[in-house]
Amino acid sequence: MTEPDLILSAAAVVTMDAGLTCHADGAVAVAGGEIVAVGPRADLLAAHPGAEHRAMPEAVLIPGLINAHAHSGFLRGTAEHLPVWDWLTLHVNPMHRVLTAEEAEAASALCYAESLLSGVTTVLDMWRYMDRSAQVAETLGNRLVGVPYVGAHPDYDYFESLDANEALLETWQGGAGGRVTVWVGLEHLFYADEAGQRRAVEMALRHGAGLHTHCSEAEIELAEFDRRYGKRPMHVFADLGLFEAPRVLLAHAVWLDDAEVELISGLPVAVAHNPVSNMKLASGIAPIAEMLAAGVPVGLGTDGEKENNNFDMFEEMKGASLLGKLRHRDAAAMDSWECLRMATSGGARALGLEATIGSLEPGKRADIVAVRADTPRMTPFFQTGEWFNLHHNLVHAARGSDVAAVWVDGRQLVAEGRLLTAEMADILGRVRSLAPGHFARRAAWLAENRTVQWTDGEPA
Amino acid sequence: MTEPDLILSAAAVVTMDAGLTCHADGAVAVAGGEIVAVGPRADLLAAHPGAEHRAMPEAVLIPGLINAHAHSGFLRGTAEHLPVWDWLTLHVNPMHRVLTAEEAEAASALCYAESLLSGVTTVLDMWRYMDRSAQVAETLGNRLVGVPYVGAHPDYDYFESLDANEALLETWQGGAGGRVTVWVGLEHLFYADEAGQRRAVEMALRHGAGLHTHCSEAEIELAEFDRRYGKRPMHVFADLGLFEAPRVLLAHAVWLDDAEVELISGLPVAVAHNPVSNMKLASGIAPIAEMLAAGVPVGLGTDGEKENNNFDMFEEMKGASLLGKLRHRDAAAMDSWECLRMATSGGARALGLEATIGSLEPGKRADIVAVRADTPRMTPFFQTGEWFNLHHNLVHAARGSDVAAVWVDGRQLVAEGRLLTAEMADILGRVRSLAPGHFARRAAWLAENRTVQWTDGEPA
Repeated sequence: MTEPDLILSAAAVVTMDAGLTCHADGAVAVAGGEIVAVGPRADLLAAHPGAEHRAMPEAVLIPGLINAHAHSGFLRGTAEHLPVWDWLTLHVNPMHRVLTAEEAEAASALCYAESLLSGVTTVLDMWRYMDRSAQVAETLGNRLVGVPYVGAHPDYDYFESLDANEALLETWQGGAGGRVTVWVGLEHLFYADEAGQRRAVEMALRHGAGLHTHCSEAEIELAEFDRRYGKRPMHVFADLGLFEAPRVLLAHAVWLDDAEVELISGLPVAVAHNPVSNMKLASGIAPIAEMLAAGVPVGLGTDGEKENNNFDMFEEMKGASLLGKLRHRDAAAMDSWECLRMATSGGARALGLEATIGSLEPGKRADIVAVRADTPRMTPFFQTGEWFNLHHNLVHAARGSDVAAVWVDGRQLVAEGRLLTAEMADILGRVRSLAPGHFARRAAWLAENRTVQWTDGEPA
Repeated sequence: MTEPDLILSAAAVVTMDAGLTCHADGAVAVAGGEIVAVGPRADLLAAHPGAEHRAMPEAVLIPGLINAHAHSGFLRGTAEHLPVWDWLTLHVNPMHRVLTAEEAEAASALCYAESLLSGVTTVLDMWRYMDRSAQVAETLGNRLVGVPYVGAHPDYDYFESLDANEALLETWQGGAGGRVTVWVGLEHLFYADEAGQRRAVEMALRHGAGLHTHCSEAEIELAEFDRRYGKRPMHVFADLGLFEAPRVLLAHAVWLDDAEVELISGLPVAVAHNPVSNMKLASGIAPIAEMLAAGVPVGLGTDGEKENNNFDMFEEMKGASLLGKLRHRDAAAMDSWECLRMATSGGARALGLEATIGSLEPGKRADIVAVRADTPRMTPFFQTGEWFNLHHNLVHAARGSDVAAVWVDGRQLVAEGRLLTAEMADILGRVRSLAPGHFARRAAWLAENRTVQWTDGEPA
């Protein structure tokens, strides 16, 4: 074993390995950004007396959380309480039409900084001008799966293009020391014509990249799929060859029926479950237990600042638990371990990064989060024995604000709840100074295009 | 007007008055623990140049939040994933059997401290040994509606007695400078025989006190009401004279039908809605929009540490919004103002305290919370104008950990996120030292009473 340069110890280490091993009074040893040992504190300290030791007796170590579906943005709280169609035509689509690269970069900085502070070390971000997003990730230190918001259809020419997606694949795949992964994005199947759909798949194949898209979020999509293709969405995806991509991640997948779950379970297809967004936009309840039973990899996502409206994956774990219990009318459904798994190792599988992240195990990158245990929310605190409640406390009581420290690739990015790689005041100030101008341009665009507004982007 | 001794100013003041007035760059003036003026900062400072001025330009002032249904306790995370009946017989009821006054006091300290730190200034707590709880509230400085967990039936003689409830009414009603209010409690209608039910109502009438009980939380209650009385619960309550009490607050009320909503809308009956608990215990979705439309006062509650598992009323507001949107499959349902209202002025109405608390208006007590605005969750931040998003950010993005400062009766209890009236480490340490002994006694009781266990407390 490489001799560790750092040992982190804590009241407990929740590894999220396949056996859900927890070490009370445990430690993680790190060398060159990689985890080299995990186990009881006393054993690791005895084996490596020369390593720097950072003791956190009032914290619990967990793997960095993985947000499997997010959007940068700064519409937070300004596009609320609207049926999906009004919301798209009045806020979201015109936002995309007037968005500048500078605004997009400021939005990504806001998203990644907020994420890091709440223990999210990896963000799958579907956004625009993502070379800027990748630069932000390089600076802030988080891990990023960058997925351009592509429209490849004349009606959606104000989104990113496949050309831009390909350029990002060529320039940023594996960038920032391996922390940036680039995927092929499609906002929605309907946002690409057949040539665009085909090119997206071929691009994913050529680059060995994943393909990410929204699907079956709202029930109304089913009728439109039926009208266009006479089939439910997963069968259409199969027919069109979308599942030929090396891997596919579907955001939402609320309205999959049993046959569709069975279909994707035999394919390299994963799902990003967004329980808070699905409630907030009144989309419905995804059949997550059924997907997990069928072996479909499921990660958890917050969706964007305009659909949630925060990036707290602790809230998302609790949301997944609550929504699962409600769906099945069973307090034992969607248990706490399953929710933790979706936010860590399950998310890693969904993103194809299971060899690298998602658990605290030797050989994985040192993406580690320290959650405060000296809080009411973690009291009482049983990290061992028959009243063990650590998993339940993490899912149902703790929140992102309980995160004390964060490491990615062994580099500390958050200490005592503060970001070390940027000034939060600068990030907030930049968004606050840019937002009014953006909103004014959006309003101007809407005023000039009033007649278009209500049919803009409507499925043909 | 009494000359104010303190003026608090902030980026915005969200008054939650009947007109939902907000003052950008606003202020609240306090004299002797009472609000004497609310308005633009410049006006208040000009009118009262001699008052101490505390400027919080990076905060928003809101009324102290009101938790309309909670239980002290320390089972957090140790009684999970169980169907209600196993949960009651294995954890909750045996907990009550072995609970000591010292443990109960430690649990209340944990609950009220956690509540204050997240901006909850008033807690309706249904718990045991509540003279101890009242002492805790006197020390910590929060407002308390104390409701003993009464069982008045031979099968439930291990809960509090009506005698103890009456003693609490006599000793603590109006205590702690008016911050303690005492109600009559009944754990459940079935936990009292007819004489007990009658005495509870008469005690409430004699003391001018409210009556609080759980009702229609789980669907299975309906069958038992039907078996015992041949009627749905609200009609049984009416028949038995429960609604003769000066005011009645029902916790949960998930399974009320239209006729029951109509029945209670004409009576001094309010509801405490517990969205997170209702999801976590898989109880169902309460018809809150219907109750509000019928004029029923609705407050929000977290329920207990074992049902939620925290006391964060920001999470509860978001839960109410999400659950309402899901129920009605409408993103516009249960809007942010309605959620804020249930947590403030609506909660005050539900508790009969609307003359005293629930909004920032002259004549009300100075229960004031400063929420940080210098956070990603409050960015962008429009406290005025057409993009006003303060209410949405408060409900959907902020959390209890964003609370920077709290005043009750004009006395500051929380500063920079820290409790001023007790050492949090002492409160946590006390619970952590008591919990294992309590759990061991509970296990011993269960071992000795194994034959009783599975029928313990079952409806006759």
